[in-house]
Amino acid sequence: MLNPQRTIDELKELRALTGDENGAQRLAWTDTWAKSRTWLRGKMEQLPVTIETDAAGNVWTTLKGQSDDALLIGGHMDSVPNGGWLDGCLNVLAGLEVMRRIAAEGTPPVTIRLVDWADEEGARFGRSLFGSSSCSGFMDPDELRTFKDKDGITMVEALGKFGVSLDTAKQAGKELAHAKAYLELHIEQGPVLESMNLPLGVVLGTVGVERHAIRFSGQEAHSGSTPMDKRRDALGGVSKLHLEIREVAKRHHGVCTVGRVETRPGIATAVAGQADMTLDQRHIDAGHLAAMLQEAKDASQRIAAEENIEVEWRRLWQIQPLPFHPHLIELCEQAVMETAGVSHRLPSGPLHDAAEMVHANIPTIMLFVQSLRGISHNKIEDTREEHIAMSVTALDKLADKTMAWLAGG
Amino acid sequence: MLNPQRTIDELKELRALTGDENGAQRLAWTDTWAKSRTWLRGKMEQLPVTIETDAAGNVWTTLKGQSDDALLIGGHMDSVPNGGWLDGCLNVLAGLEVMRRIAAEGTPPVTIRLVDWADEEGARFGRSLFGSSSCSGFMDPDELRTFKDKDGITMVEALGKFGVSLDTAKQAGKELAHAKAYLELHIEQGPVLESMNLPLGVVLGTVGVERHAIRFSGQEAHSGSTPMDKRRDALGGVSKLHLEIREVAKRHHGVCTVGRVETRPGIATAVAGQADMTLDQRHIDAGHLAAMLQEAKDASQRIAAEENIEVEWRRLWQIQPLPFHPHLIELCEQAVMETAGVSHRLPSGPLHDAAEMVHANIPTIMLFVQSLRGISHNKIEDTREEHIAMSVTALDKLADKTMAWLAGG
Repeated sequence: MLNPQRTIDELKELRALTGDENGAQRLAWTDTWAKSRTWLRGKMEQLPVTIETDAAGNVWTTLKGQSDDALLIGGHMDSVPNGGWLDGCLNVLAGLEVMRRIAAEGTPPVTIRLVDWADEEGARFGRSLFGSSSCSGFMDPDELRTFKDKDGITMVEALGKFGVSLDTAKQAGKELAHAKAYLELHIEQGPVLESMNLPLGVVLGTVGVERHAIRFSGQEAHSGSTPMDKRRDALGGVSKLHLEIREVAKRHHGVCTVGRVETRPGIATAVAGQADMTLDQRHIDAGHLAAMLQEAKDASQRIAAEENIEVEWRRLWQIQPLPFHPHLIELCEQAVMETAGVSHRLPSGPLHDAAEMVHANIPTIMLFVQSLRGISHNKIEDTREEHIAMSVTALDKLADKTMAWLAGG
Repeated sequence: MLNPQRTIDELKELRALTGDENGAQRLAWTDTWAKSRTWLRGKMEQLPVTIETDAAGNVWTTLKGQSDDALLIGGHMDSVPNGGWLDGCLNVLAGLEVMRRIAAEGTPPVTIRLVDWADEEGARFGRSLFGSSSCSGFMDPDELRTFKDKDGITMVEALGKFGVSLDTAKQAGKELAHAKAYLELHIEQGPVLESMNLPLGVVLGTVGVERHAIRFSGQEAHSGSTPMDKRRDALGGVSKLHLEIREVAKRHHGVCTVGRVETRPGIATAVAGQADMTLDQRHIDAGHLAAMLQEAKDASQRIAAEENIEVEWRRLWQIQPLPFHPHLIELCEQAVMETAGVSHRLPSGPLHDAAEMVHANIPTIMLFVQSLRGISHNKIEDTREEHIAMSVTALDKLADKTMAWLAGG
């Protein structure tokens, strides 16, 4: 019988084992991370499963079913430094509880595989989704070869200690040979469910992202000797565009963020000759995302003309929206309704390993549970225990429905 | 007979002696600065004058008149690193040429004193107007005692090599005992005269300054998971206030500048939880300056409420407007009209040694000559030679008128 309280107890056990007064410390490719995986393996080994580590360092726990067709449930034991007690490990431990329930009922109709992805966070080397993107084939070894952590240790060196090589990591892709569906539970890491007073939500997909560096160039000038009408204030471009992109986001029901601004020379007594800003735009719909980008570009040109300054754009990063599987969205909504009596569909702003499973063309779905204050990647990250319990129950129902769907063909 | 071309030739001679491919290098308290002063002394010594260095390192060249009442003409040989060929030294060399003309005509009715102020720029230790503020009594030795340059050399040490001590520097004040008027010619260092196609301008005074650090505090949030209507974007405060203070400045015919903006955490993927900005406001009228400050504060409160964020202000610096002497403004305007046929009155945004003479209650006036492109503190700083010549002529006429005024009682 499913015991969601056990998941809560195990989360607390893990926190005591791998956290400190500053939060979770399960940074990938470190001893504490390894300790958390050894602890997890001890629990897995009590089930009738096989446990293997693939070429990218992902750990696969397999409960053989009547068919080789596999239902995957995923999560990640690694955390950011000073992280929260739920991000990533809730997914794994809830999956473990679901697997226990299924195993107790005998051989399932399809094979159930729980995957603990390696280095979802990318907190040490700046490359997130390492394990899942190695599996999906989207990891580029040559891009990562020169990456170093803050102490100068290369990614190659750190992975080598765990028997993982960039050259062979993509061999992990064979693990997906029989995968027919991928389920992932995660804390929302945002404020939407809490603001609607909902415990659970069905995730529509991960949003597409357009991330750009925008530079306005005007004329550096003395703050005392330059009349207002003689200025070419580069910061004028940033301030106007920042306010404008907030309107663009509202029009399209997406999000647009200016997170970083820098001025040059950057002193109190000089009109900025150069002003840099970042722009991060996200939408679940590719058409809206493209429109938001175009409207921001048009606005920047109009503003540059108004201010008699120049503007240039440089793309930092881009990813297409990755919508989840329509039928799994339906099944997830049923599971949420049966558990909580009320449901809500929302996109995921942050990326997750699930996005790589979409890349690999595996029918994928995510289930969100409410985050208190919308805060994550911080020791104060939290979710009500009653909501954690409900999320384990909903994941279990979703797994059951998905098994039935896969078994039915 | 006055020979303005000689001033231009001497400026070029000085540039060859103390500049390099990056511009002027007469940083105060360095060998190159000392070299420029030795060169200047060689020219002074050809006149019937006495030359003394005071306790603050200012060099006084005195042409004794029929009265001890003294007309001061001031400038500074020191430059910023990689500075222009005119800032400071034009003032001194034009003063030298005027002194030559007066000396050639015999004993003047009042004593004429040319002062080469020490360390006007403050480029090495961050404290401008050292020599003139020591003289006016506004220099605070205890504030400067701990100042160091970028190589860790203290101001105490650097000044010591030139026989100047912070403890005794204010004894320089006795040089002002008989001072009855102070004249200073300077390049405008701004774009006003060039934009009006005028060679010369009469300076009304140095503007008052209110300089503040303003911090908006909202809530750091993930750029992907936080809907627009759930955000408390600290940068919203900065962008709105920046655009607002530009309107405040226009309303009052003053200047307001946001030169520096900083966001925290300052990454593309996070809504800014904190955003800092500087605000520099300047006006020649104390009432308008106070109103500009109040309007900016009111706007910041209104904006903070709109954005659901907090705002706090911290004063960085403040100086009252220092208006020049009304009768000297009249005399200067006559001199400019006689020289150029057209005149314009404008405030000085940058501070100058003249401001310290206002502090010392000496009737003071400045004369500006056009700066090309309004650029200074840079090797491309420039002024047309015909305008330089006119500025020497106008200073000479102003000196004559001022002598007559002082002699008349």
